[in-house]
Amino acid sequence: MSTLFLRTLREDPADAEVASHKLLVRAGYIRRAAPGIYSWMPLGLKVLAKVEAVVREEMEAAGSQEVHFPALLGKDPYEASGRWEEYGPNLFRLQDRKGTDMLLAPTHEEMFTLLVKDLYSSYKDLPLSLFQIQTKYRDEARPRAGLLRGREFIMKDAYTFDIDDAGLDAAYQIQREAYIRIFDRLGIDYVIVNAMSGAMGGSKSEEFLAPTEIGEDTFVRSPGGYAANVEAVTTPVPDALDWTDAPAAHVEDTPDTPTIETLVAAANADHPRPDRPWTAADTLKNVVIAATNPAGERGVLVVGVPGDRDVDMTRLEAALAPATVEPATEEDLKVHPELVKGYIGPGVLGPQARPADIEFLAEDDATIPYMLDPRIVPGTRWITGANEHGKHVFDLVAGRDFVGDGTIEAAQVCAGDPAPDGSGPLELARGVEIGHIFQLGRKYAEALDLKVLDVNGKQQVVTMGSYGIGVTRVLALLAELNNDELGLRWPAHVAPVHVHVVATGKDQEVFDTAARLATELEDAGIEVLYDDRPKVSPGVKFKDAELIGAPFILVVGRGLADGEVELKVRAEGSSENLPVADAVATVAARVERALG
Amino acid sequence: MSTLFLRTLREDPADAEVASHKLLVRAGYIRRAAPGIYSWMPLGLKVLAKVEAVVREEMEAAGSQEVHFPALLGKDPYEASGRWEEYGPNLFRLQDRKGTDMLLAPTHEEMFTLLVKDLYSSYKDLPLSLFQIQTKYRDEARPRAGLLRGREFIMKDAYTFDIDDAGLDAAYQIQREAYIRIFDRLGIDYVIVNAMSGAMGGSKSEEFLAPTEIGEDTFVRSPGGYAANVEAVTTPVPDALDWTDAPAAHVEDTPDTPTIETLVAAANADHPRPDRPWTAADTLKNVVIAATNPAGERGVLVVGVPGDRDVDMTRLEAALAPATVEPATEEDLKVHPELVKGYIGPGVLGPQARPADIEFLAEDDATIPYMLDPRIVPGTRWITGANEHGKHVFDLVAGRDFVGDGTIEAAQVCAGDPAPDGSGPLELARGVEIGHIFQLGRKYAEALDLKVLDVNGKQQVVTMGSYGIGVTRVLALLAELNNDELGLRWPAHVAPVHVHVVATGKDQEVFDTAARLATELEDAGIEVLYDDRPKVSPGVKFKDAELIGAPFILVVGRGLADGEVELKVRAEGSSENLPVADAVATVAARVERALG
Repeated sequence: MSTLFLRTLREDPADAEVASHKLLVRAGYIRRAAPGIYSWMPLGLKVLAKVEAVVREEMEAAGSQEVHFPALLGKDPYEASGRWEEYGPNLFRLQDRKGTDMLLAPTHEEMFTLLVKDLYSSYKDLPLSLFQIQTKYRDEARPRAGLLRGREFIMKDAYTFDIDDAGLDAAYQIQREAYIRIFDRLGIDYVIVNAMSGAMGGSKSEEFLAPTEIGEDTFVRSPGGYAANVEAVTTPVPDALDWTDAPAAHVEDTPDTPTIETLVAAANADHPRPDRPWTAADTLKNVVIAATNPAGERGVLVVGVPGDRDVDMTRLEAALAPATVEPATEEDLKVHPELVKGYIGPGVLGPQARPADIEFLAEDDATIPYMLDPRIVPGTRWITGANEHGKHVFDLVAGRDFVGDGTIEAAQVCAGDPAPDGSGPLELARGVEIGHIFQLGRKYAEALDLKVLDVNGKQQVVTMGSYGIGVTRVLALLAELNNDELGLRWPAHVAPVHVHVVATGKDQEVFDTAARLATELEDAGIEVLYDDRPKVSPGVKFKDAELIGAPFILVVGRGLADGEVELKVRAEGSSENLPVADAVATVAARVERALG
Repeated sequence: MSTLFLRTLREDPADAEVASHKLLVRAGYIRRAAPGIYSWMPLGLKVLAKVEAVVREEMEAAGSQEVHFPALLGKDPYEASGRWEEYGPNLFRLQDRKGTDMLLAPTHEEMFTLLVKDLYSSYKDLPLSLFQIQTKYRDEARPRAGLLRGREFIMKDAYTFDIDDAGLDAAYQIQREAYIRIFDRLGIDYVIVNAMSGAMGGSKSEEFLAPTEIGEDTFVRSPGGYAANVEAVTTPVPDALDWTDAPAAHVEDTPDTPTIETLVAAANADHPRPDRPWTAADTLKNVVIAATNPAGERGVLVVGVPGDRDVDMTRLEAALAPATVEPATEEDLKVHPELVKGYIGPGVLGPQARPADIEFLAEDDATIPYMLDPRIVPGTRWITGANEHGKHVFDLVAGRDFVGDGTIEAAQVCAGDPAPDGSGPLELARGVEIGHIFQLGRKYAEALDLKVLDVNGKQQVVTMGSYGIGVTRVLALLAELNNDELGLRWPAHVAPVHVHVVATGKDQEVFDTAARLATELEDAGIEVLYDDRPKVSPGVKFKDAELIGAPFILVVGRGLADGEVELKVRAEGSSENLPVADAVATVAARVERALG
């Protein structure tokens, strides 16, 4: 400790919100270099190496071969796949001295595809599984939470190559099992959820989420075992209703009702329903959205959802990927004077707003696309805007009085909603995505023309899988899951050292003994950090040891006069005295046990 | 081999000029991803890990602590040090989504300085030595020779921090010794040469050069032990001569003498010297150079050298760093009609061309700066241009008839030139720079305000050293030094595997035995690549084994019927038969010995 490049800090860094970020900086593991970009200090590198080793071992055990691609790449492969555009502002782009467009790779599907195309040509070369542990770049709009969402980060990405779907299924299963072993070995609880594949394309996709309040991802699960990230949840579609006896739609004065709440109150006061009070679920809320495609073209659409739900922008964005979305601005609304804020209704939206003799074109600026929640089935009756200030229309029947341009999964998912597979009511939780496995299928192989000869001598497009683990994110999550008010509490197998030896006081005998124990432990294969600082108080040394968070703290101090040293177990907060003569054997045995 | 991700190639890659580049690609170690940017295949990664391990072990043994900085950095620190500009087009620059200027770091002096400033504040914290092994970026104008000069490459860079010059000297010496151990362990011959520090600033600087014909760097050495790179060679300055009896300068007609050769011939024919013939060394050659500073401003200067030498652009560029230089173009010359091509002389250059009442200003466009070779001392007599077509001036005496704006080390160094330290005549050789150690001094600490309190409680600027090893370049050099016409011949300690086991023929017994030997060797701690391909001919297998270059090749084939296997030693081209029962023990012993 007297020479280790380390300064522990008593104050949380100003920009840190979550425990892992605060503690990794305070305990001297990482240091901020730029927003979302961190330098690694000696202790941090040691933990990182251990996490990487677990990932590497399990990938190799799963038959995957390690390679390493550049981070700086030419644009062409990413243009061929469409991702040069699709990534939008998340991609770090640059030009070299000759003006050639280049990028910092956020992930390497294209390059793996091209390398295999370059070298392999026959079904006999497959199956093939490759991985790398590599520094990646994404220009996040809001880098946050330290290493949990950075702009430069380390990922393990793996790719599989198979001649047919059965091969891909098998490869996917092997990777899935490797992920389970990796996260089990790291001691991380996780939920495997169905996932949208979003901009990545492909068919089957699952995420490994570690449930935690600070997670950015919302996911759902049901008592019957359904689990999905919120983007992937599908809404069970109710049966259509008979509208034969439904009254005709009628417009009513509803002054001062720009919100669902005021509308429901006014409806109950002035136009009461005979059988029960109106609720928000009886209203149809039409939300104006501005969507921007990767080429930067911006347009509005309207999403209709039952009034008791909001539009979930994350779900909406996943549904409209690769476009990005935000609530329409005043500027957007100016282009469409037919939209009367607070009183927007189907009359000016979608098919019913278009002359009957022209077909709907998505790029038609003249009428606004209208997408409906799947619950708005034919025969359902709604109170909704009449496109006139202070007026709403009642008994507007879907299918009879209006239709949408299609349905969209964009309404928020609520606790208690039914699981799509009938396995019971959903509960919502938050989690951090630590792994993601995809069946990419033939998207990249087709875009980049990766074909091999099959058993009949015919060219076949290869089918691929893509599998990622956020290595630096996993490290941050381990810190997030293993700490208390005093500092970090690393599990033994990822701790920077196993034992933190602390010499207290000024007695030379104490320092000599501590140094000897540290050396003997190291000779026994135990990793040791020895606090040999001569002029630092015991209080400061204990605080540092607790902050740094080695699983065992061995204190050599006053007790030495009685032939004793003290062993503290950081995770348990426990402490016991050991005869100094037994200390090395006892501590070594305890470390062995902790390492499992 | 039947599942290894590898395809050996029989043809050299079209863009490869040097053996290491050809063989590393052909044998499946690396693959080109973009100009000067390579992907690493499984075999390449194994060699890379071994080279890195040697470097890491010796750096740690030298008391240096490992950290890791981002490759993607903000501009500010590099602007503070001046290198944002100085690097010119060699720096990969980009902007993030917010328009913030960023760069891909070519080296990390600034970031290390800031990190130490961030955490340390007292002389008690020093000395400190830090290193990283990290991917770096330089936008080379001419990436070449595969990994020898890439745009994305791996470097070990280390930095030391000391309170005073004596500390820096000691730290420098420790690094120097670590470098000697590293290159000795890697089995690379090297010469340690004095080096200019160029754009890096600082005082003492040495390069480790591996002598090889394909090297980009020229260096010199003398019988007495002087060694320097060509940029660092200084010219011994002759004594000034008495010009009392020198004749007055006289202009002569020298038609058709635009070159030194034609001039010397004409002078000897028409204006012979009484005591001996004129030689090129009697002429003063004035070379017009265009220099561009980092801000992109271009201007001309003239360099005067004895006519028997050329201007060495590498030496000139080092002398004028951070400016870049090239021979002046027709465009440059148009601005200066006073320069008569082939007949340029001092009359229109430097001090003598300026009105006596104004001082020389470097930025003065009106007159051309004139820099002289150190050999042009007062009293030396020259034939040189008279600034008129077809005319030269004779007996022009330096110091009497003309002066320069200063001296410059820009003339080519020739074999036989005297070493500056009097240790004898220089010989010239080429080499690859594999390591570089610098005493940076206080340049970066001053620019970024890194100070600590000294023993008297006073703020002191810290003094620094910077030490680099090109890890991927060293790997390429090892391939360059260890190959023959058949392929690579790795030394055991960096080979991707120790033993390449080859099973030949179709006999199942052969394959079973080969598989068993491979397993037993692995159990004995030997790294094995087993060529188990069932339908590949022995000839192809041998060719692949020789190309890949493992130090030992163990062939299991026809000899097995007689209870024998064949052991080939790749580096020696030798071969011997071993009883199959002894094979594992014998091979293991041979590998042990080869690993030293």
